[in-house]
Amino acid sequence: MKGLNPVFIPGPTNIPEALRHAMAAPTIDHRGPAFAEMLPSLLADLRIVFGTKAAGIVTFPSSGSGGWEAALANTLSPGDRVLAARHGMFSHKWIDMCRRFGLDVEVIDAPWGEAAPAAEMAARLEADKARKIKAVLVTHNETATGVTSDVGAVRAALDASAHPALLLVDGVSSIASIPFRMDEWGVDVAVTGSQKGLMLATGLAIVAVSEKAQGAMAEAKLPRWFFDFRDMLKAGATGSYPYTPPTQLFAGLRLSTTMLLEEGLENVYARHRRIADGVRAAIAAWGMPLCAARPEIASDTVSAVMTPPGFDANRLTAHAFSAYDVSFGVGLGDVAGKLFRIGHLGAMTDVMALSGLAAAEMAMVDLGLKIELGSGVAAAQALYRKASATPAERKAA
Amino acid sequence: MKGLNPVFIPGPTNIPEALRHAMAAPTIDHRGPAFAEMLPSLLADLRIVFGTKAAGIVTFPSSGSGGWEAALANTLSPGDRVLAARHGMFSHKWIDMCRRFGLDVEVIDAPWGEAAPAAEMAARLEADKARKIKAVLVTHNETATGVTSDVGAVRAALDASAHPALLLVDGVSSIASIPFRMDEWGVDVAVTGSQKGLMLATGLAIVAVSEKAQGAMAEAKLPRWFFDFRDMLKAGATGSYPYTPPTQLFAGLRLSTTMLLEEGLENVYARHRRIADGVRAAIAAWGMPLCAARPEIASDTVSAVMTPPGFDANRLTAHAFSAYDVSFGVGLGDVAGKLFRIGHLGAMTDVMALSGLAAAEMAMVDLGLKIELGSGVAAAQALYRKASATPAERKAA
Amino acid sequence: MKGLNPVFIPGPTNIPEALRHAMAAPTIDHRGPAFAEMLPSLLADLRIVFGTKAAGIVTFPSSGSGGWEAALANTLSPGDRVLAARHGMFSHKWIDMCRRFGLDVEVIDAPWGEAAPAAEMAARLEADKARKIKAVLVTHNETATGVTSDVGAVRAALDASAHPALLLVDGVSSIASIPFRMDEWGVDVAVTGSQKGLMLATGLAIVAVSEKAQGAMAEAKLPRWFFDFRDMLKAGATGSYPYTPPTQLFAGLRLSTTMLLEEGLENVYARHRRIADGVRAAIAAWGMPLCAARPEIASDTVSAVMTPPGFDANRLTAHAFSAYDVSFGVGLGDVAGKLFRIGHLGAMTDVMALSGLAAAEMAMVDLGLKIELGSGVAAAQALYRKASATPAERKAA
Amino acid sequence: MKGLNPVFIPGPTNIPEALRHAMAAPTIDHRGPAFAEMLPSLLADLRIVFGTKAAGIVTFPSSGSGGWEAALANTLSPGDRVLAARHGMFSHKWIDMCRRFGLDVEVIDAPWGEAAPAAEMAARLEADKARKIKAVLVTHNETATGVTSDVGAVRAALDASAHPALLLVDGVSSIASIPFRMDEWGVDVAVTGSQKGLMLATGLAIVAVSEKAQGAMAEAKLPRWFFDFRDMLKAGATGSYPYTPPTQLFAGLRLSTTMLLEEGLENVYARHRRIADGVRAAIAAWGMPLCAARPEIASDTVSAVMTPPGFDANRLTAHAFSAYDVSFGVGLGDVAGKLFRIGHLGAMTDVMALSGLAAAEMAMVDLGLKIELGSGVAAAQALYRKASATPAERKAA
Repeated sequence: MKGLNPVFIPGPTNIPEALRHAMAAPTIDHRGPAFAEMLPSLLADLRIVFGTKAAGIVTFPSSGSGGWEAALANTLSPGDRVLAARHGMFSHKWIDMCRRFGLDVEVIDAPWGEAAPAAEMAARLEADKARKIKAVLVTHNETATGVTSDVGAVRAALDASAHPALLLVDGVSSIASIPFRMDEWGVDVAVTGSQKGLMLATGLAIVAVSEKAQGAMAEAKLPRWFFDFRDMLKAGATGSYPYTPPTQLFAGLRLSTTMLLEEGLENVYARHRRIADGVRAAIAAWGMPLCAARPEIASDTVSAVMTPPGFDANRLTAHAFSAYDVSFGVGLGDVAGKLFRIGHLGAMTDVMALSGLAAAEMAMVDLGLKIELGSGVAAAQALYRKASATPAERKAA
Repeated sequence: MKGLNPVFIPGPTNIPEALRHAMAAPTIDHRGPAFAEMLPSLLADLRIVFGTKAAGIVTFPSSGSGGWEAALANTLSPGDRVLAARHGMFSHKWIDMCRRFGLDVEVIDAPWGEAAPAAEMAARLEADKARKIKAVLVTHNETATGVTSDVGAVRAALDASAHPALLLVDGVSSIASIPFRMDEWGVDVAVTGSQKGLMLATGLAIVAVSEKAQGAMAEAKLPRWFFDFRDMLKAGATGSYPYTPPTQLFAGLRLSTTMLLEEGLENVYARHRRIADGVRAAIAAWGMPLCAARPEIASDTVSAVMTPPGFDANRLTAHAFSAYDVSFGVGLGDVAGKLFRIGHLGAMTDVMALSGLAAAEMAMVDLGLKIELGSGVAAAQALYRKASATPAERKAA
Repeated sequence: MKGLNPVFIPGPTNIPEALRHAMAAPTIDHRGPAFAEMLPSLLADLRIVFGTKAAGIVTFPSSGSGGWEAALANTLSPGDRVLAARHGMFSHKWIDMCRRFGLDVEVIDAPWGEAAPAAEMAARLEADKARKIKAVLVTHNETATGVTSDVGAVRAALDASAHPALLLVDGVSSIASIPFRMDEWGVDVAVTGSQKGLMLATGLAIVAVSEKAQGAMAEAKLPRWFFDFRDMLKAGATGSYPYTPPTQLFAGLRLSTTMLLEEGLENVYARHRRIADGVRAAIAAWGMPLCAARPEIASDTVSAVMTPPGFDANRLTAHAFSAYDVSFGVGLGDVAGKLFRIGHLGAMTDVMALSGLAAAEMAMVDLGLKIELGSGVAAAQALYRKASATPAERKAA
Repeated sequence: MKGLNPVFIPGPTNIPEALRHAMAAPTIDHRGPAFAEMLPSLLADLRIVFGTKAAGIVTFPSSGSGGWEAALANTLSPGDRVLAARHGMFSHKWIDMCRRFGLDVEVIDAPWGEAAPAAEMAARLEADKARKIKAVLVTHNETATGVTSDVGAVRAALDASAHPALLLVDGVSSIASIPFRMDEWGVDVAVTGSQKGLMLATGLAIVAVSEKAQGAMAEAKLPRWFFDFRDMLKAGATGSYPYTPPTQLFAGLRLSTTMLLEEGLENVYARHRRIADGVRAAIAAWGMPLCAARPEIASDTVSAVMTPPGFDANRLTAHAFSAYDVSFGVGLGDVAGKLFRIGHLGAMTDVMALSGLAAAEMAMVDLGLKIELGSGVAAAQALYRKASATPAERKAA
């Protein structure tokens, strides 16, 4: 039977039934009181998720990429210089977007598998005495390589040279899964999407905008209408959207945010950490390297597993799907065919993760990789077990 | 009990259960074979819905307004002149968008309640010897006033002066509900959204792009990334989207298109016509005027009912909602407070329409309007009845 | 389009979306803690619905008829005499069941359209000096004729002769829709089903058992296993069912009971009364008689409309379904072809009721009945309108 | 997060989303044409599932136990002798039911873990020269012990002595999961429920009745109404049910039967065999015995795992649920606390099974059992892997 197994792509993530039902709600009038009355508490809760007390929250019916575009278009003007690191497919795409909008991108290339190089960024900012750099772009979690960058370190780099550039952060595959501290890190625009840690269908970009970024809006000359923060900030205050809001996704977002806060954000983060630790232990047991260059930057939401030289990793994802009905993420761009990705974010349990590891093991062995069946599973179990059994239960055993 | 009655807003429309379930599907890998294999037949069927044999179909996770932006951004350059009529909120908003993108809009103002003035457009095009006008914008169905414009007449106007301008059409509240003949009318870009005639949740703009418009893409200088036709045309061919596609909405679109074609587009149009005729008969029985200036331009998807001078129409929509749990559309912009709108498009039956008319009657009488209870219902029934009973049944009676 | 209109059969009733989703819950372990923990509060709330403080509540995966069988099998022995009135299809069927189980039924035949004749019952009980009558059966609401009987009067009849017979009541189409006062009326076994006032799918019989009836269990000799109260009373206390309980229906029941109590039972009853008043006003406006012999016994959950002599009412229900996709109830048994039934119980709103009346009018006119279109709707609107508009709103108008 | 993992109880089984949506369908008129028109093809397909060409198919809103009761009540009379083996909780309960209905049960006790002893049955039948035994009862698959009996051998026993007794078979946890050949085995009444191999919610007993059993109906004197075959056989022919049928469950059954036939029954059986082989390999790797006395009678739908003496198996199921949110079946009756059960029937995949094994391993280790983490998973993977990889893929690797 097909369609019964979870997916292990790094988003869109598995969607809890309750959220899918919420998103299947009958049509309501988006101009009626029910929708408007729901908004303030939702926006307040989203602020908690972003780790901010005061930022404005705007949403766009689009994808996370639409949130990127909104971040640029509302804060910058044609010809503005931005500083960005390129170390994976998504940081690459954001840079491509900048260029299509006529921005002058100062690119710092780092190896795919590395994090955004905060030290090099600090140097560039320090060197920018003319303050030509208007914004620094950081991809908090490079979904393509399974690498998490240190946004706080980039903030420190800005602070070190007292640089006024805005800090724009792609948190699409991090926010609501791993710690995101917008205020603490002085992030000016933080972007996420509905389909990752928020456990919803694709279709909503959710963007938090600091007061400083709101100040920059007035000056920003890039053309925008659909993605205009100004209309959307008003919409959040009045419930009167500039165009039809996707009320079903909002119903889902209302519930998923409640679910996250009821679980407790720190518990959500701990769960992602624990599951990721198990997946990484499994990968180590297989004797395969992560794409992430160093353990401390390995992502808690997605693990990119390097396959041996000469092995086409795409055969593995194709085979896992056709033989076991399990989806893993393919390698993208520079690492296409060289790795496969295990997504472990969103609505994921230890037991689900183990089923993904078991499927990966079978697929790898099927294709001749030298892996011992059960070895990764056992390594992960050892971590999940310790994490789950209570002392009283262990004592009782 | 709340939440049991249909809505009568002119979109988002009531969504059949089967479509809501389709949109509640579990997550699949958007890079996997299932999604890619579904696309070609879907795009082929969408062409039928748009009335085109060869146009490219692109989709964006956004709303219909996102489709407008895509239509402009992909075919025009800053400073380009466009010709547009303004005769309602949505034509007004499209013009506003043009200006924010730095286009030079030649506006023809017509009264709200009138259609796009094809004769005046013809005159402007004829006068444009220098061919500075690069595009003509038409709002096929003005949702704010309940008026349908004659797109074929605008095409005739272009042809009369052999004008090469592109014809861009907002079909958000018309396509899939009333006849739309893209090829016959020589439309270059036609825009619709998921949440009207296609009976889905808000969240997808669907745009058909003629070969001529595709030719214009290469020259178009307006900046774009999220809304770039080029990436999306490729995506349709390969299944490889430039960013995460909303697979749940695609699942819904796959099914809703099938449902429309199974009912038969001409039957769908006839159903909308019949229901609209009944609603108009009811409004006439109430002795209230339509906003539509003339019967022949009254829309088959939404009827805007003018309330008496001095009466605040917003009280009516608020009361209908609070007292009867029925949502009607409010007046927008210039006609705010002066009219209310009965949406009768999408998944609508005669019987549902009658329930909306009955609710409107109660609400109007409650607020002191001089309406006879049941009068509008009876007028609509007379039309629905004739339409529904078979001759054999009538004979047998 | 088919499948969009509500049904107007007197059960199964329209099911609110939230309840259908609750009943679509994933499988849980019926022997696990979650199920057991949910039960006590559910049973407590069901007692409120039945109007009892102390009765035991048992449930069977079956239909309301299964509840009848349980009521008999757990309190009676072969050859026992029971007193029952026959005045409609469902009282008839219950008597048939008694006979198949070897009970000696003393039948009081009343015309279909009459209520259970309490006076005649009183006489029979008074005459039963030998106390051979072990139980009196009352069909609280005859769904076939749209007649509500006075259970309190039957209790008074029992009390008048100090007769010890048990009082068994079929409340399938009454409980949770119209007042049911188990304790006040001294009912010993009250039976209902999931698919009427409780607004769920068919599949659960819910039975309340007085202490006196529980006392009779020990003596009762009718064979039983599936429908044994004893196992089920234990199950309610422990959560350990004698066979697999339908956990999805329980999830639905948990929510529907909550919804009813949140609306407030008296409000639920008032809503049913108001809607029924409107339907009856419509029927009067059509000039058609109810099957109910007298206004004071007309049911608030279903109205049975007599069609003119010589007219086949089944043509009407068939035509309403084929032409308008609206289901009404057919006549059953003695009144087959002579009436049609408008169910107005469960998840029903004024506006839904109006749509049913409007559909009925069209169907009747189609088939040549002399009805004025809109006349019934207007009569109902007049009642619904008064009921719904607030004084402040009327004053403001 | 809770509620995301599959259950591994031996029914109710995991329900595919599509089936849950089918069972969440809006209310239809059970007396209308749509329901009646659906029935014949459904009944025809159910015959295929039961392995019969001519048997009548009846359904009751109840559980599998209701089907047992129907099997007895429709073919036997008070005092009739039946021959039955007792070798687990469900065969025990069926015998208890017989006694409550006043049947004279000749019980053959076999150890729990053994199958129905066909040889001993043959001897009893041979000895029954007076043909007092009217029926032989077989529990095809003892869900409590994970043992499958050989129904064909019981048929052979009947044939050997040309005994005319009816053969009544409980196929609740076998039919639609492992081969069931009603005609080939000469089964007279076969009983199943909706909530096992048919992958639906609990609530429907489905019973196949041979012509011989239909002949016995006329003579059978056990009282019955709700469970009367006669009314239900008529219902199947006409669509006119004696009481309200659960149309939502029927919608589910229509789809689940289609899904099974599309997968192919032999493929369904092979899938269950393969999954069961893997689970058994895992249990062997753990060094734990099955309750099933011999490999050849081990069930392909449920595996009962004996825990070491002195270990309370209920602690294991409780811990697995609380620590890992995974439900396994507890031991019942004589084996309560001595075993836990892994259900692997219905909508189950290899990958799901592996996740259950992984969870069981962690729970066992947590409680001090001497199990090597990953050992069972690896043993199962070795079987699943071989089963799944195609030769071409292995060659390519």
